[in-house]
Order: sequence, then C-alpha cells, then structure tokens
Amino acid sequence: MDTREICAALDRTDPLAGLRQEFVLPPGVIYLDGNSLGALPRRVAARVGRTLEQEWGQGLIRSWNAADWINLPARVGARIARLIGAAPDEVVATDSTSVNLFKLIVAALRLRPDRHVVLSERDNFPTGLYIAEGALGALGQDRRLRLVGRDEIGAAIDADTALVMLTQVDFRTGALHDMAALTRAAQAEGALVLWDLSHSVGALPVDLDGAGADLAVGCGYKYLNGGPGAPAFAFAASRHHAGLDQPLSGWLGHARPFDFAPGYVPAEGMARLQCGTPPVLSLAALDEALALWNGIDMMAVRTKSMALGELFRRLVAARCAGLGLDFVGPADPDRRGSQVSFRHAEGYAVMQALIARGVIGDFRAPDLLRFGFAPLYLRHVDVWDAVEHLRAVLAAREWDRPVHRRRAAVT
Amino acid sequence: MDTREICAALDRTDPLAGLRQEFVLPPGVIYLDGNSLGALPRRVAARVGRTLEQEWGQGLIRSWNAADWINLPARVGARIARLIGAAPDEVVATDSTSVNLFKLIVAALRLRPDRHVVLSERDNFPTGLYIAEGALGALGQDRRLRLVGRDEIGAAIDADTALVMLTQVDFRTGALHDMAALTRAAQAEGALVLWDLSHSVGALPVDLDGAGADLAVGCGYKYLNGGPGAPAFAFAASRHHAGLDQPLSGWLGHARPFDFAPGYVPAEGMARLQCGTPPVLSLAALDEALALWNGIDMMAVRTKSMALGELFRRLVAARCAGLGLDFVGPADPDRRGSQVSFRHAEGYAVMQALIARGVIGDFRAPDLLRFGFAPLYLRHVDVWDAVEHLRAVLAAREWDRPVHRRRAAVT
Repeated sequence: MDTREICAALDRTDPLAGLRQEFVLPPGVIYLDGNSLGALPRRVAARVGRTLEQEWGQGLIRSWNAADWINLPARVGARIARLIGAAPDEVVATDSTSVNLFKLIVAALRLRPDRHVVLSERDNFPTGLYIAEGALGALGQDRRLRLVGRDEIGAAIDADTALVMLTQVDFRTGALHDMAALTRAAQAEGALVLWDLSHSVGALPVDLDGAGADLAVGCGYKYLNGGPGAPAFAFAASRHHAGLDQPLSGWLGHARPFDFAPGYVPAEGMARLQCGTPPVLSLAALDEALALWNGIDMMAVRTKSMALGELFRRLVAARCAGLGLDFVGPADPDRRGSQVSFRHAEGYAVMQALIARGVIGDFRAPDLLRFGFAPLYLRHVDVWDAVEHLRAVLAAREWDRPVHRRRAAVT
Repeated sequence: MDTREICAALDRTDPLAGLRQEFVLPPGVIYLDGNSLGALPRRVAARVGRTLEQEWGQGLIRSWNAADWINLPARVGARIARLIGAAPDEVVATDSTSVNLFKLIVAALRLRPDRHVVLSERDNFPTGLYIAEGALGALGQDRRLRLVGRDEIGAAIDADTALVMLTQVDFRTGALHDMAALTRAAQAEGALVLWDLSHSVGALPVDLDGAGADLAVGCGYKYLNGGPGAPAFAFAASRHHAGLDQPLSGWLGHARPFDFAPGYVPAEGMARLQCGTPPVLSLAALDEALALWNGIDMMAVRTKSMALGELFRRLVAARCAGLGLDFVGPADPDRRGSQVSFRHAEGYAVMQALIARGVIGDFRAPDLLRFGFAPLYLRHVDVWDAVEHLRAVLAAREWDRPVHRRRAAVT
C-alpha cells in the first residue's frame, strides 16, 4: 500500500532528485502543468539578464557576431537534437510550432507532388489541423485533409497519402503512438510522416533517426522549460534536406542573407527552415533551459515519469473512488506520455478549486482534468499531496462555488 | 558654419534631449545603427526580470490570465497603432515581419482573386521579395511578382495588379515614398497596397488611416527599440478585417482557441493574424520599450531626425571632401527617412575601421556605408564626433588593414 512515507523514501533514492533545486517553484504550489508551461530554471534569469544588459545593451548590433546570435537557432537546435534522437544538424529552433508545421506540411506535399491527402487523427492537437487546413487551402489543387480515428490510421494510409501528420502523445489522454511502426507503415505506402513532439520532448526518449522519421516539430515551452511562447523547433531527416522547399522563404533562410540579393536561394540544410529574425531574448532563455539536460539520461526521465503517473493513477483510484472521476487514456504506462487525465462532469470548476488550493493542473474542454508530471522537478510526495487535495475538493464539493465556475480567458 | 560648440548648443535646446537618459548607451560608442537594432531602454531590464521571475517563475501557467499574457499581442499592437496613424484595433504584434508579410500577401491576393500580379520595387528590402516569391509559389495559378524601378511604380499599376508591396523607406538610400499618393494610385486601379514600415515606425510620423492604407507590417527591433528579433506587427484597415483570410491559421488566430474544436474559425478583427503562441519574454520587452513613446510628439521626432541627418551630410561634405565618399539618396531631407548613406569603394573595411573607433553604423553590400539617426538617444555632438572619426579613418587610410577586411558572418 502507498503511504506518504513510502513516497518520501522514493524521493530519497530518486536519481533525478537533485534537479529540483535547479528550478524556481513557488511555495505552496504543486505544479502538475509542466506539460503546458514548464517551470522556470533558476539559471535562466541570469542568462536573459546577460543577453539583455551585456549583449544587447553593451554589444548592440555587434552581438550578432560577437555573441553569435546568428547561430543561436542552429545551436539550440543541436541541443534539442540530442533529446530526440536526431543528428545535431537535423534540428533548428525557429518560429512557433504552428508556423513550423505550415512550413513542413507544404514541404512534404512538394516532396510527394502526385499525392493529394494529408492524413491525420480526428483528435490531433487542433492547431495541427488548423494549420493543415491553411496549408492545403493555400496550395489548392484538389489536396485535402483526411481525419480518422486513432485506431484507423494504419489502414487509412494509401497510395494517395502524401503525408501522415501525427502528435506522438495525445494532448487529452496521453496515449502514445508507436512512432517506429507508424513511420514504417506510412513509408511502406510511399508517404512521409510529420511528428509533433510537443508533448514528448523532454518527457520521454524519442528516437527520430532510429525510427527512420522524415519530419518533426515540437514545442520549447513545455517539458523543455524554455519559457512562455519559447521558440519551437523543426526536424528533417538529412536525406530530405536538399529537396526541402518550404514557402516561408524569409531572409534568414537564404543562402547568403547579407548579400541582400533579389532572388531567394535557400540555405543548405536546416537553416532554410528559418524565416525572419528570431526573438533572441526568448531564444536565449530556451538555450539556457536546455543546458540543464546535459548528462541527463532520458531513460531515467522516462522511468520516473511513469512512476509518478502510475502513483497518481493508483492513489486517485484508491482515495477518490466514487467521487465522480473517470480515468481516461491507456492504463498501461508504457503506452502513455507523462500525463494522466480524468473526466469529471464539473471538470472546469474542480480544476479551479484545485488551483485555489495550489495544485495546478489544467482543464481541457469539455470535461477533462489533465495532470502532467515533469520528472525534473516533481517529487513522489507532491503526487501524494496533490491527490489529498483532489480528494478534499471532491469530497467536500469545494468546486460547487460560483468563483470556481467563472470562466477565464485562458482555460 | 557648423562647429562642435554649435552642436552642443543645439543639444541644450533639444526638446527630446531628456530621453537619452532613458537608454543604456555604452561608453565610448556613438551608435548610428539604431535602424538595425535599437538601443536598450533602461526600463526594459526590470520589466523582463519581472515577467521572468514573477509572472513565469511564480505565476506559471496562471499568468496567461493573471498577467494578461493572452492579450499582450493586442495591447502591444495598440501602442504601435498610435505611432502609425492606425486605430488601436487595427494592429497586432505577432511573429516576424517576414511571416506577417506572408500572411498579408496571401490575404491580399484572396481579396483580389481575379488579378495576377504582385508589384514591387527591384530595390525593395529583399525579405519582402523572397516572401512574395514564397507566397506566390504556394498559391500558383499564374500569379507572379513583377519588379520595377522606383520611378516606374505608378505607371506599372494596372487592372491586373492585385497588390502593390512597398517599403516606405528604402533600406539602402533612405528614400521615402509618398504613401498617400501611391496608395491613391493603386486604389484607383483597384489594387491593394501593403506597406513595410520597418524603417519608418518610430523614426517619422506615419498616417496609415489618413492615407487610406490597406495593409502594413513593420519591425519591433529598429526604432521601436524592442530588442533583438523583437516581435513584428501587422496592420489591416478595419474595412478589410471581415474578409481577411490568411493561411497561417494557427490556434491563437482561432475564434475560440480554448475550445480545442477541430475546424478553424478565424477570430474577429486582427486577432486572426495571430498563429502560434507568442514569445512572451520578447513581447514584454517590446511592450516596455513602447511605453517610452507615451506623450512623444512624432513631429518633434521627425524634426530632430532631419536635423541630425542633414548635419551629418553637411559635415561629411565639408570635412571628408575628396576622401572617396559619394552621398547616395535624396538630398532633400523631406524625401528621406532617418538615415544617410554613402558609397565608398572600400565600404566594408571603412565601416570596420569606424566600428573599431566606437562609431557603429552598418555596411550594405556591395559598397554602402549606412548611418541611422535615432532621435530619442542621439545628440548633435555625437554627429559631430562621428564625422571626425570618419574623417580620421579615411584621411589616414585606417581601413587599409587586414583586420578590417576580414568578413564576419553578419555584416
């Protein structure tokens, strides 16, 4: 049987326990929303201060060379590459996940010009679907987005499929796709695959090159702790680089941007995925947050992530039984990302009541309570305490107050 | 005759002189490159520190509501609107100038579906041309980019022109377009106009609504001093909002992003120009830099800008005669933005030698020395001193050293 004492004992032998002190964690808060916005690594404030006061303030325009701002997208990309099983030059940090999806969807359709279908999942993270709509609408020519259920993807891939676009970890349920198997299935039909790693990178080992993946994007501000709206990243397998033709052909993707020559000539490699000038302060924050990952074993991260998630699920089952929660998602932790979700008829108000107690998870319409477990800064005792708060909220119907039902702009 | 004493006297009566103390300006540096990267406003460090440590570190995900991050793009847009003669809800701060050009070029072509030509200037800032190539390539359907000389634009607009895309201030010569006249000429033929204000905003009064302008974009990191790679902005006249159909249809441009519903429905107004999650640290820096403009009279900015530029031109003519410099651009300061350019056969090395002396301007291939005058933090004596350094570099051929000829990654 689980007890708080056993949780405390697990924390004492946790090989990642020392990393918690690298983060700013507000007193009285148990943060189970690192999958929406990662916590602030302590080292980031000094780095951003230096970038701002020294590099910008004192160095001014010279810092594009002197502080090597110009190569920051590539250097940050190389740091991310290590976490997702890619070669350093297969990843670039640039723009947002949505913008990068647009670039890679169009590039993929150009690599498969005789095919018409972008295949995705009905429950894919919506921005991927919105962006696919936008990209297909721009390209026209009878191309279309086809959405199927999660279990129908393999069977739906055919000779007209140009691209299979999938999010590795389902943002609602945490269900994890088999990247290697789906990549093989798509490639067997001649299609490309574009993986959205937003809910995977930093939470579990990803092996893009091992899976033979074609294209990927991901988010810098969730498990990578790069800060609100941190730049995202784009990956393309090196075999695709020479043929990668993306439409957002801005000057920093040019082979010789400082020639200021009239015609667009794409840079070699992933640099061509860049478009405009990157937001250096935000990119520096992400770079510094990524330095935390040096030497971290992603298998240890995954082991702890699964242990925390399973502990949460087990404790909720044991201590919140009969209080209106329905577990959603794969029961097998091997088939789940670093989150655990429950349905509750009053999900929104329950989450507000929990947040009022300092337990921060998030709510996803219409009725989903979502709890993320960031293995770098969460402890087993946090999980124990969070479940105790959840039990209290539900048992005393604390959610049943007008203040908790009032909808905010961002849920 | 100009003397350093007269310059000092002009500084004493300069109505904007007090603003200089609001900026970090490194000792020993005369910064004539605020048109590439504006100087750091002192207030920005504290704001970014607060955003980072309080809002991100302590507030975590709650700050999307509590610190109103979600409305930052609109609030920053409203601050910029005041500087460019737009209504507060006609501007949004988002993405980069290049990405915003892409959105608005496609949106403009959709507003003029039966027309085929995007007309621009051969010497337009290259990223605009690169992006137009990318947008037209994506849309296909016999649409094309037509480039003409500066004086041929009016005559080149015809019934097949969907969009005239122009940069108000030429990035090489500083030549200023007549926004109202060219807007009228384009609209008389049924075309739309998209103005790039990157080298105008914060340097001279812009009156988009007064000129009846359709669309515009601009940069946050030049005269607005928003920091390296600061988010850019997009403008559309309110009469176009309902029909504005841009292809980068990411979740933050959705009418109800937090419904996470499958189909894309654009938000009302300029919010639909948003795409992914904005880089909040960089956006907060820009917001704070914009607070400096409260109460500043743009006519006073323009008056000082022209005075500084004319002083520089006059002094170079008088004190650098016969040293290989050829003035480039309109002699009439009314027809010039806030910069002065000269050709020199050894332009690159001359600029490096100047920078070694602490006078920072920039070089634009193949042979252009470009000097920008940011009226908020430059003094008349700075102009005097800069010209003395320039004279010394040229007279003693200081540029003729290997160290000054070595090309850096960013010029």
